[in-house]
Amino acid sequence: MERKPCSNSKVVKTTLVFPPDTNHHGTLFGGKLLAHIDDVASIAAIKHARQPVVTASTDSVDFLAPVTVGQSIHLEAYVTWTHHTSMEVFVKVITENLMTAERTVCNTAFLTFVAIDKNGRPAPVPEVYPETEQEKRMNESAPARAEQRKRRREKSKEFANKIGLQE
Amino acid sequence: MERKPCSNSKVVKTTLVFPPDTNHHGTLFGGKLLAHIDDVASIAAIKHARQPVVTASTDSVDFLAPVTVGQSIHLEAYVTWTHHTSMEVFVKVITENLMTAERTVCNTAFLTFVAIDKNGRPAPVPEVYPETEQEKRMNESAPARAEQRKRRREKSKEFANKIGLQE
Amino acid sequence: MERKPCSNSKVVKTTLVFPPDTNHHGTLFGGKLLAHIDDVASIAAIKHARQPVVTASTDSVDFLAPVTVGQSIHLEAYVTWTHHTSMEVFVKVITENLMTAERTVCNTAFLTFVAIDKNGRPAPVPEVYPETEQEKRMNESAPARAEQRKRRREKSKEFANKIGLQE
Amino acid sequence: MERKPCSNSKVVKTTLVFPPDTNHHGTLFGGKLLAHIDDVASIAAIKHARQPVVTASTDSVDFLAPVTVGQSIHLEAYVTWTHHTSMEVFVKVITENLMTAERTVCNTAFLTFVAIDKNGRPAPVPEVYPETEQEKRMNESAPARAEQRKRRREKSKEFANKIGLQE
Amino acid sequence: MERKPCSNSKVVKTTLVFPPDTNHHGTLFGGKLLAHIDDVASIAAIKHARQPVVTASTDSVDFLAPVTVGQSIHLEAYVTWTHHTSMEVFVKVITENLMTAERTVCNTAFLTFVAIDKNGRPAPVPEVYPETEQEKRMNESAPARAEQRKRRREKSKEFANKIGLQE
Amino acid sequence: MERKPCSNSKVVKTTLVFPPDTNHHGTLFGGKLLAHIDDVASIAAIKHARQPVVTASTDSVDFLAPVTVGQSIHLEAYVTWTHHTSMEVFVKVITENLMTAERTVCNTAFLTFVAIDKNGRPAPVPEVYPETEQEKRMNESAPARAEQRKRRREKSKEFANKIGLQE
Ligand SMILES: CC(C)(COP(=O)(O)OP(=O)(O)OC[C@H]1O[C@@H](n2cnc3c(N)ncnc32)[C@H](O)[C@@H]1OP(=O)(O)O)[C@@H](O)C(=O)NCCC(=O)NCCS
Ligand SMILES: CC(C)(COP(=O)(O)OP(=O)(O)OC[C@H]1O[C@@H](n2cnc3c(N)ncnc32)[C@H](O)[C@@H]1OP(=O)(O)O)[C@@H](O)C(=O)NCCC(=O)NCCS
Ligand SMILES: CC(C)(COP(=O)(O)OP(=O)(O)OC[C@H]1O[C@@H](n2cnc3c(N)ncnc32)[C@H](O)[C@@H]1OP(=O)(O)O)[C@@H](O)C(=O)NCCC(=O)NCCS
Ligand SMILES: CC(C)(COP(=O)(O)OP(=O)(O)OC[C@H]1O[C@@H](n2cnc3c(N)ncnc32)[C@H](O)[C@@H]1OP(=O)(O)O)[C@@H](O)C(=O)NCCC(=O)NCCS
Repeated sequence: MERKPCSNSKVVKTTLVFPPDTNHHGTLFGGKLLAHIDDVASIAAIKHARQPVVTASTDSVDFLAPVTVGQSIHLEAYVTWTHHTSMEVFVKVITENLMTAERTVCNTAFLTFVAIDKNGRPAPVPEVYPETEQEKRMNESAPARAEQRKRRREKSKEFANKIGLQE
Repeated sequence: MERKPCSNSKVVKTTLVFPPDTNHHGTLFGGKLLAHIDDVASIAAIKHARQPVVTASTDSVDFLAPVTVGQSIHLEAYVTWTHHTSMEVFVKVITENLMTAERTVCNTAFLTFVAIDKNGRPAPVPEVYPETEQEKRMNESAPARAEQRKRRREKSKEFANKIGLQE
Repeated sequence: MERKPCSNSKVVKTTLVFPPDTNHHGTLFGGKLLAHIDDVASIAAIKHARQPVVTASTDSVDFLAPVTVGQSIHLEAYVTWTHHTSMEVFVKVITENLMTAERTVCNTAFLTFVAIDKNGRPAPVPEVYPETEQEKRMNESAPARAEQRKRRREKSKEFANKIGLQE
Repeated sequence: MERKPCSNSKVVKTTLVFPPDTNHHGTLFGGKLLAHIDDVASIAAIKHARQPVVTASTDSVDFLAPVTVGQSIHLEAYVTWTHHTSMEVFVKVITENLMTAERTVCNTAFLTFVAIDKNGRPAPVPEVYPETEQEKRMNESAPARAEQRKRRREKSKEFANKIGLQE
Repeated sequence: MERKPCSNSKVVKTTLVFPPDTNHHGTLFGGKLLAHIDDVASIAAIKHARQPVVTASTDSVDFLAPVTVGQSIHLEAYVTWTHHTSMEVFVKVITENLMTAERTVCNTAFLTFVAIDKNGRPAPVPEVYPETEQEKRMNESAPARAEQRKRRREKSKEFANKIGLQE
Repeated sequence: MERKPCSNSKVVKTTLVFPPDTNHHGTLFGGKLLAHIDDVASIAAIKHARQPVVTASTDSVDFLAPVTVGQSIHLEAYVTWTHHTSMEVFVKVITENLMTAERTVCNTAFLTFVAIDKNGRPAPVPEVYPETEQEKRMNESAPARAEQRKRRREKSKEFANKIGLQE
């Protein structure tokens, strides 16, 4: 499989904050922003892999600023790192007050996607390579994050088992 | 403010996986599950605080198993720990194959909510206290998680600043 | 087929009243509540039957109190009675003013579901048996309601024929 | 207030059955049809009253035939009878297989709406009068249905009280 | 194939303007009205053709009056003209202030649909014939509009090629 | 008011085609694409005007290629020309088969938006100026299109009056 640059998977999505996505004080639900983040990140992952993908995990997300009705949300995503079947995607979320042009980085997020073959089993993906300074920094710091996720995932499984099914 | 037990904020939500929330292979989008998780967790936080709340952060989430059309998702949430104005909410997600009754713990998640007064400023919340064994374990391990989030949040802010606004 | 207790099919769903589901005075549309009721009742029926089901009928529903934006709706459903291929499901709807913790039983409803085989034909369901006092009362009063529905359904068919297709 | 004919409130709505409104066997959810019925009926009630309205109740609804993806649903509603502040609305639902032009009366329903003033209190509505044969029959049989609803509503309230709030 | 009158494809849809379809000043998004127009027009085209159809084009649409929350939108559509595989559908949109009964023609639109066979290729449709005065005027003026569309479409294709894919 | 370059209003939106937006053959509804086009174009207009806007008209749109489930839609919009209170926005729609990377220009569209002050009256907008070759061509050809729209609008109004309100 041919190596591909980070830029090849770049996806941009600008959208308005609509009333149905806000609470009755006009503030965007955190869950709606997470859904936007997963949406744009999954397109980036598919563009890199050219195969169906599933979300394997999201790292922690800090909501640094509230997002209000009438603002626009601008999301950018690209694949920063690949391993065998998994891809790390970085997402940056900028909100803009459309009346004043004031912009804020309101979130950054790292998600991991896994390419999936016809039987729903993990499938190999092409290697990604960085070109810009930012891409390089992201790519270089990725193995450490991947290592952490591996440990975290074991704990998540143990925890899920311990917690159990009973309501 | 009167202390309240964890059980006071318990919220349960069972729902079907509907076709519009799935990709064209019939698997639930990760982002949709995150939206469900934020939804149920925010009700738990409001029930504890009896005030409007905003999502401050979600810890990392591992998607341990795919969720398919026609399955039901069962979410349970309750407040595990409180500080001054913030509350930690634990969410457990169980999926059930409705035809076979087979159930799987497919996620667990920790979110932090902050109570908000009329001017959108953080507002104090009542203290929570645990009663069951599980609640006690969650409550005791919470300060360590809170400490981690504090450090993480500083890094998120620095990172957001470094990344910057330019597209 | 093995008999199953009412409790086996119990389904709980708590959700917020969102702005898109309300009229421009901030009151929930009756039709939206009916959709929630059918949703939770159908999961209860599927959990009992472990087969696909269709809604055969809903009995009358009285809307005893308005439901406003920012309230939570808490729905509980379980199978109260079974015949050959049909199941009666009882749904209780409680609304809660999340700021004051004031709760109101705003509706109760009885729906009938029919299990469906691969060809869309009615299929036998396991017998249900009641355990608690409430379940027993529901179960004992069910045959009279079923009898009424039978007569009602004949009238509905006649009426539909008499009314006819012309616009 | 001036009397108005039934025809003045007539509302027609034809729509396609879309995939998101169906289960994964392609059959419309009963709850979605109930939401359509309430939607069209409430427009009829508002057109008669020229005031905001709330759904007070729906009589029982029998689902006489399944509705499948790709069919159209044709709903017709008009006010059949008025009392002081309440209006009875009749809804007829016809489904059409768009490929074969085959049409079926799949439901009929009676709903009651109450006009609401600025303080959310019941407000008087104009009297309705029937003109066609069908309208006359509906109008004449309405007082008996209203009487039944009155008794039913008392029972609903008692029942809600007896059932109580505890989960 | 048998000729069919315009009236055979007539479709009417009345709906309320809901908050989620409006901007935060309570005015309906133009795009939502276009979606309603395409929806009702496509049902008219399918009713005439009794085959699946795709939207080939919409002529220009002027929004003559704003539409606000709480108003009703009343759409009427019918096939005005047919050629070999294509059908011209006329849509009239009337808005009604439900409190005052004031009505406005807020849009008219012409769309072209093409019937599609199993392989997604254009398929012949029955001829339509007009009966009323309005239908006759629409039908007579249709060939001139069709001629314009043909030229326009060539330009659209050239333009799309010239503009190209690069972002 | 300061002049602004076309590039200042540029908006990009990439999204997946989701099952609920497609007919039961998996092809995107034309109306859904029109809603996306209006969405992205209105953000471009607001970014230029820094005021609320309403859609005044859309020119004709030709759907040159079907869009299927699982494809991505990539929309780009910017303000090409301004007059006193109105802005012309150009939208380009590219679809991408995510599995094969094959891309098609499937639509281009011109919409006109008008800026609106607090009383809903048209309000002046800053002048736009083109920089790139494409922007210059769009800007130069705009007055002719605006002239056509003016004539068209008069006809639309006359036509709406002639057609009238009666159903
Ligand atoms: C993600 C999934 C396919 C992994 O399957 P698995 O059988 O555990 O596969 P493996 O252990 O072989 O791991 C495959 C890859 O996924 C990565 N991975 C698995 N879980 C991960 C996690 N939680 N976070 C990050 N990466 C993860 C592994 O590191 C491995 O990467 P590599 O091949 O690049 O080295 C599986 O857990 C799954 O289907 N989860 C549900 C996904 C989903 O539906 N998401 C939406 C839910 S609503
Ligand atoms: C309907 C409602 C306004 C009635 O208020 P109330 O204080 O009980 O008023 P009253 O007893 O004076 O009744 C007013 C009218 O409503 C009618 N009514 C009340 N409940 C009714 C019911 N369940 N079915 C039919 N009619 C009913 C009464 O017969 C009376 O009619 P009339 O004035 O024509 O003789 C009130 O119960 C309410 O707000 N319910 C919730 C409505 C709602 O929000 N629906 C959607 C919920 S999701
Ligand atoms: C419900 C349905 C399957 C019944 O099919 P049918 O051929 O009439 O079947 P039968 O007369 O043999 O009745 C089967 C069972 O359904 C029950 N039933 C049928 N109509 C009923 C009604 N309106 N209310 C309550 N029970 C009903 C019968 O009592 C019988 O129960 P039992 O087997 O436990 O004794 C059929 O009418 C149907 O498909 N309706 C549409 C369901 C649907 O799609 N709902 C959503 C519409 S949007
Ligand atoms: C419409 C479509 C089927 C035409 O296919 P084609 O291979 O170009 O077919 P042809 O050139 O043979 O034209 C077939 C008919 O369509 C008509 N037609 C094609 N493009 C048209 C347009 N833009 N406006 C009006 N009519 C058009 C032709 O005039 C011809 O009509 P006739 O048979 O009645 O004389 C094809 O362009 C298509 O699939 N477009 C996308 C449709 C779609 O998915 N819409 C929703 C997009 S979100």
